[in-house]
Amino acid sequence: MSATEDLWACAEQVRDRTPLVHNMTNFVAMNAVANTLLAFGAAPAMVHAVDEVEEFLGRADALVINLGTLDSTWAAAMKLAAHEATAAGKPWVLDPVGIGVTAFRLRTGQNLVDLGPTVVRANASEILALASDGATHGRGVDSTDSVGAAEQAALALARRTGGIVAVTGDVDLVTDGSRTLRIANGHPLMARVTALGCCLSGLTGAFVAVGENTLTATAAALAVFAIAGERATDRAQGPGSLAVHLLDELYRLDEAVFLDRVRLE
Amino acid sequence: MSATEDLWACAEQVRDRTPLVHNMTNFVAMNAVANTLLAFGAAPAMVHAVDEVEEFLGRADALVINLGTLDSTWAAAMKLAAHEATAAGKPWVLDPVGIGVTAFRLRTGQNLVDLGPTVVRANASEILALASDGATHGRGVDSTDSVGAAEQAALALARRTGGIVAVTGDVDLVTDGSRTLRIANGHPLMARVTALGCCLSGLTGAFVAVGENTLTATAAALAVFAIAGERATDRAQGPGSLAVHLLDELYRLDEAVFLDRVRLE
Amino acid sequence: MSATEDLWACAEQVRDRTPLVHNMTNFVAMNAVANTLLAFGAAPAMVHAVDEVEEFLGRADALVINLGTLDSTWAAAMKLAAHEATAAGKPWVLDPVGIGVTAFRLRTGQNLVDLGPTVVRANASEILALASDGATHGRGVDSTDSVGAAEQAALALARRTGGIVAVTGDVDLVTDGSRTLRIANGHPLMARVTALGCCLSGLTGAFVAVGENTLTATAAALAVFAIAGERATDRAQGPGSLAVHLLDELYRLDEAVFLDRVRLE
Repeated sequence: MSATEDLWACAEQVRDRTPLVHNMTNFVAMNAVANTLLAFGAAPAMVHAVDEVEEFLGRADALVINLGTLDSTWAAAMKLAAHEATAAGKPWVLDPVGIGVTAFRLRTGQNLVDLGPTVVRANASEILALASDGATHGRGVDSTDSVGAAEQAALALARRTGGIVAVTGDVDLVTDGSRTLRIANGHPLMARVTALGCCLSGLTGAFVAVGENTLTATAAALAVFAIAGERATDRAQGPGSLAVHLLDELYRLDEAVFLDRVRLE
Repeated sequence: MSATEDLWACAEQVRDRTPLVHNMTNFVAMNAVANTLLAFGAAPAMVHAVDEVEEFLGRADALVINLGTLDSTWAAAMKLAAHEATAAGKPWVLDPVGIGVTAFRLRTGQNLVDLGPTVVRANASEILALASDGATHGRGVDSTDSVGAAEQAALALARRTGGIVAVTGDVDLVTDGSRTLRIANGHPLMARVTALGCCLSGLTGAFVAVGENTLTATAAALAVFAIAGERATDRAQGPGSLAVHLLDELYRLDEAVFLDRVRLE
Repeated sequence: MSATEDLWACAEQVRDRTPLVHNMTNFVAMNAVANTLLAFGAAPAMVHAVDEVEEFLGRADALVINLGTLDSTWAAAMKLAAHEATAAGKPWVLDPVGIGVTAFRLRTGQNLVDLGPTVVRANASEILALASDGATHGRGVDSTDSVGAAEQAALALARRTGGIVAVTGDVDLVTDGSRTLRIANGHPLMARVTALGCCLSGLTGAFVAVGENTLTATAAALAVFAIAGERATDRAQGPGSLAVHLLDELYRLDEAVFLDRVRLE
């Protein structure tokens, strides 16, 4: 199989196996993340209470932790869940939303990074903030840096965690610290819809739950999401209809369209 | 009036009287539940703090309690609200989301069932989990059992609560423990949109707030929602547009379409 | 410039400067508020934890506090953030959702009003409840009073806070206690979509962040939102598609359409 066929094979596995993804994500994104996973063919659940987070994780195929709308109660439950995922050998994805913006967020995020996430999925400013441990990067939850500017920090972060780091932006980058893939799909209008990064992190959870190779699985999730976004933009009249079409396109995406559109470097 | 005309009469009453429905629902579903109630013609409010839940309930026409994204703070407020609803003689609906999945969720749900909900609205796995008190049913928040497999458990649960039990799936079932109605509307694509069960539970709150006969009112809510879902699916290109059309169809649904489409058994 | 050209000039400034708006808004509205701000061209962030609310506010251009889905933890963080905004001289908007409905909500809201919000954006019943300090107004979160009935209360409230008060309804009213503007745009179907008032409060945060004259900036936000809503309604088949088109129209709105549609009195 070619490299792009490998990516699509991973997407097919998600649809065949319907992995159960345990999400601890933010209030803005919860509905959209659940719909993203359902639209493509995975099974989402949103569970955050310390009373049940470990027990629930025992049933799930992957965990996704997202730091948007963080507070100290959620932070404690996230730490518990990340420990449990590591102990149980289950893949988990960390989305360090706005990590460079406050000391509380940075501390929480660094502690989670130390637990060794299978994948860190972030924008360039978030990767740079993790690398510099507090030097200001980003503005609110948006990136002010290019993916290229964060490449070395991404490689170093992957070596630190022993996992995969995905930096999304104009051209997405996925690395395990030595091998690096680039995906040149997507459309700038996607930045005008809230929580699409969070949705992608959720979808990445489904892909790494089934994929044997985590680097490939992460790249596949990024490519699927970006291509569905491109197709949605083709039909959209603005960010409202883009978000609706994106779910339809995730549902409808097939191999022929994927292989025709994917721009893997 | 025929049985199906009875159902539509209840739907008309919702639109005429605009019942105020107090929802304690999960973070994934809140926006969709509010929009469902508004689209059909009821008045939603989302209130969950122990500081005000009892006082607010005094103004509402019905209460809906939904266990998705549960934690212990919410569980305490739900118990308080359910007590108050029972004491005040106000109808209340329980949606025991994912109840079979963790011990915390099962305990919380069984305690609420003991308070005698007017209606329990659930999927088959949730009904079976309530009946078996902990034997595993369901996977995450999705059902792995057929409605038929949960029929006896639904009848027994209705006798236990003294209320109505509605099990939704391929063919929905509504029972008071002796009389049972079946509604064969809806479309499988609806399972690819998150929180539609939660939306239906919210709508059921509006119907039992105005309907004299709770069995009929519950069946009417199920039929209205499933028919709007069918019509939305006719026009949808995937789960994204289905969710949008569903709200439009709830708003537009009229007696002629309802009586033409409804499949009551 | 004419008065309507002044309004559009403020809208252009939002797009040129992309203000970062710190939102502490309710669970129902969070996603919609973020999408509203992004669609028009501002930068939203949702941050509510006491652990970081002050630090984050230091980076933001405006703060928006919305009392829907209130609890005591959020109330404490809101008070902290409002103090910080006042101390730092940053504009802040208060949306006192359902303030007349419970004692807890009224107390929390009055305390925040005492801190001097730059803008109070509310419906007529909420303005009357603030003025009468607890006499019942509104039903759930919906207004049962006309904007006209709340005019004197709005003027008095503006004098009390030293800021702007905006009352939205059939014809919106904006006042600083002496000068009053009226905007006769919008469409009744907008009341069938949840959280649009919350979205408007969020957008108002972006406008007062950039506008030199707060009265003008508030009126501009109201006019932009109502005109986008009118245009969305022209194309909508119900409240579901209205919500989608509204975001598209906020994104697409230009000067020619604005000046053609705006009805400022």
